[in-house]
Amino acid sequence: MSKLIEEFQDYRSRMNEKILGADNKVMKRIYSVDTLAYQEGALSVKTKEMLGLVSSMVLRCDDCIKYHLKKCHEEGISNDEIFEVFGIANLVGGTIVIPHTRRAVEYWEALNEKYGVNTHTN
Amino acid sequence: MSKLIEEFQDYRSRMNEKILGADNKVMKRIYSVDTLAYQEGALSVKTKEMLGLVSSMVLRCDDCIKYHLKKCHEEGISNDEIFEVFGIANLVGGTIVIPHTRRAVEYWEALNEKYGVNTHTN
Amino acid sequence: MSKLIEEFQDYRSRMNEKILGADNKVMKRIYSVDTLAYQEGALSVKTKEMLGLVSSMVLRCDDCIKYHLKKCHEEGISNDEIFEVFGIANLVGGTIVIPHTRRAVEYWEALNEKYGVNTHTN
Amino acid sequence: MSKLIEEFQDYRSRMNEKILGADNKVMKRIYSVDTLAYQEGALSVKTKEMLGLVSSMVLRCDDCIKYHLKKCHEEGISNDEIFEVFGIANLVGGTIVIPHTRRAVEYWEALNEKYGVNTHTN
Amino acid sequence: MSKLIEEFQDYRSRMNEKILGADNKVMKRIYSVDTLAYQEGALSVKTKEMLGLVSSMVLRCDDCIKYHLKKCHEEGISNDEIFEVFGIANLVGGTIVIPHTRRAVEYWEALNEKYGVNTHTN
Amino acid sequence: MSKLIEEFQDYRSRMNEKILGADNKVMKRIYSVDTLAYQEGALSVKTKEMLGLVSSMVLRCDDCIKYHLKKCHEEGISNDEIFEVFGIANLVGGTIVIPHTRRAVEYWEALNEKYGVNTHTN
Repeated sequence: MSKLIEEFQDYRSRMNEKILGADNKVMKRIYSVDTLAYQEGALSVKTKEMLGLVSSMVLRCDDCIKYHLKKCHEEGISNDEIFEVFGIANLVGGTIVIPHTRRAVEYWEALNEKYGVNTHTN
Repeated sequence: MSKLIEEFQDYRSRMNEKILGADNKVMKRIYSVDTLAYQEGALSVKTKEMLGLVSSMVLRCDDCIKYHLKKCHEEGISNDEIFEVFGIANLVGGTIVIPHTRRAVEYWEALNEKYGVNTHTN
Repeated sequence: MSKLIEEFQDYRSRMNEKILGADNKVMKRIYSVDTLAYQEGALSVKTKEMLGLVSSMVLRCDDCIKYHLKKCHEEGISNDEIFEVFGIANLVGGTIVIPHTRRAVEYWEALNEKYGVNTHTN
Repeated sequence: MSKLIEEFQDYRSRMNEKILGADNKVMKRIYSVDTLAYQEGALSVKTKEMLGLVSSMVLRCDDCIKYHLKKCHEEGISNDEIFEVFGIANLVGGTIVIPHTRRAVEYWEALNEKYGVNTHTN
Repeated sequence: MSKLIEEFQDYRSRMNEKILGADNKVMKRIYSVDTLAYQEGALSVKTKEMLGLVSSMVLRCDDCIKYHLKKCHEEGISNDEIFEVFGIANLVGGTIVIPHTRRAVEYWEALNEKYGVNTHTN
Repeated sequence: MSKLIEEFQDYRSRMNEKILGADNKVMKRIYSVDTLAYQEGALSVKTKEMLGLVSSMVLRCDDCIKYHLKKCHEEGISNDEIFEVFGIANLVGGTIVIPHTRRAVEYWEALNEKYGVNTHTN
């Protein structure tokens, strides 16, 4: 299962380096705003990562979902919490989100297996 | 400004009644899952409403944005917090979200005017 | 209510004429494929108009929805049938389709008022 | 070719079980509304499955397309009919739907190979 | 007709000021990357504005379309050229783009009326 | 790397033949409008291919992106130019476009490797 995580992360890092190496200012700045947007502010990193996840789900981008699932896992988000995010994504975005939810559940399980299961504490 | 709020809410209520009055089980159940999904659970109502808002923004639905802005306001979400949600929506969804953000800011101001400004307390 | 129908149809006709008058071959051919696609074939016009309607709903285009609602009404589609189309659109496309459904119901009522209510016969 | 069908169905069943096993009420209810929406009603199952298919195509979800193609095949939908659905999907949704149509045709052929070709009878 | 242009521009300017006045760094930076992206570079401003226009059309954002139409007009883009952009947008994005094209044509005519018709010179 | 190009092109050709072989007039005409839309006109083929590429990116269709990248490469578009298209796509379409940009960069490199690097000449 952890192969799923590593393959995604390797490809992502490798290609991000190429994008940033291309010396295109617009792309570089988009990457830097991306870093800024998820930093602690009036909202916590945990909340922001869930916002990123639900957005990725309703827009149905598997790689973005994987990225935010990892961040959510690092933030200590529990199984119950992540499924409530899935619920809202599937409700707002419709059943068209279900296949992405299947892959999200698979990836979440891989994260649980590799890094341990988070216990819910509000 | 409060006319903006009332006109939206009146039309929404009136048409929702017609949809629910049509005696179509699928539509009725979707409405009832909708109620369920935003209730307090592992995640707070406040968090869930922000998830609903950001989803509505990246999917670019003005009426859905208005609905969740009102709920966010009721949950005591501050100006700084709401703008951080706007930031993530515009980042993930792109500049195509900006016109919806303009209308969101107008509606948020109407809510602030009618119900008072929320102060941020984490 | 019938003003809703006429205003939409007038604007639509007037602007379609301008588009076709612009002498752009690509636009002209897209319009002609559009006519072709909804003609009786292996599938009936009635079925095809419902396909056009549900597509317009999940893609959330109010004007396209109005256009296909009118065609569906001409094809004798009943209230029960149209609500089953709405149900599938809202299920597949998510609650983001609800505001468009509200406007669809309003337009459908205007059609019922102007042209009479269709009775379901399979 | 039938490997294409089995791999999709196996993964789908396995992950659906996990989603339903997670004991999240919202997800469970969305699945149950999904079942309800495609049942015989004012519209036939055949019509509803074509509505599900065309929605999945314009929203460009390969797994959803596969699922509905299988259901359409079970409902006896012919090659001519399915291509008319493809036509409307590609017209309304644009050439962006073409790559999904290529994969749809491949899957439809696998279904024809495994279960036999449906003959058109209106 | 020129009322159409002024009303859009007034609302846009007024709300942009509020967004930038909110002192949210993410929103401010997105606005500044937006300025950067359309500046002369390896590609001309004219080409970039057409790229912005076609993106806005396939993503079906009327306000974004209006904004880029104005910029395209300033760049001397002719009627024939703009209709070729419309053609690609309607082809790739599908007939769902047609209602937005109707409004685009109306706005383009208003621009032609107010600022004069551009003649095509390659 | 060139395997990436060949596999895509083989599958694409093979399935396009089947679609055109199905004798469905709507699909055939959509393919023929597609050919027409990208021909030299008021706008150059080079400009039109960039319009096709940016549309495919904001609508997030990997196969369409690959197709237009190849055409852009044939038109002599340079690395700097293609990255400016990527910049506009990621700005307008949001960070949700990044994973598709990663795959686009990989494909563009494969094209550069197989056919040589284009040098920018305006």
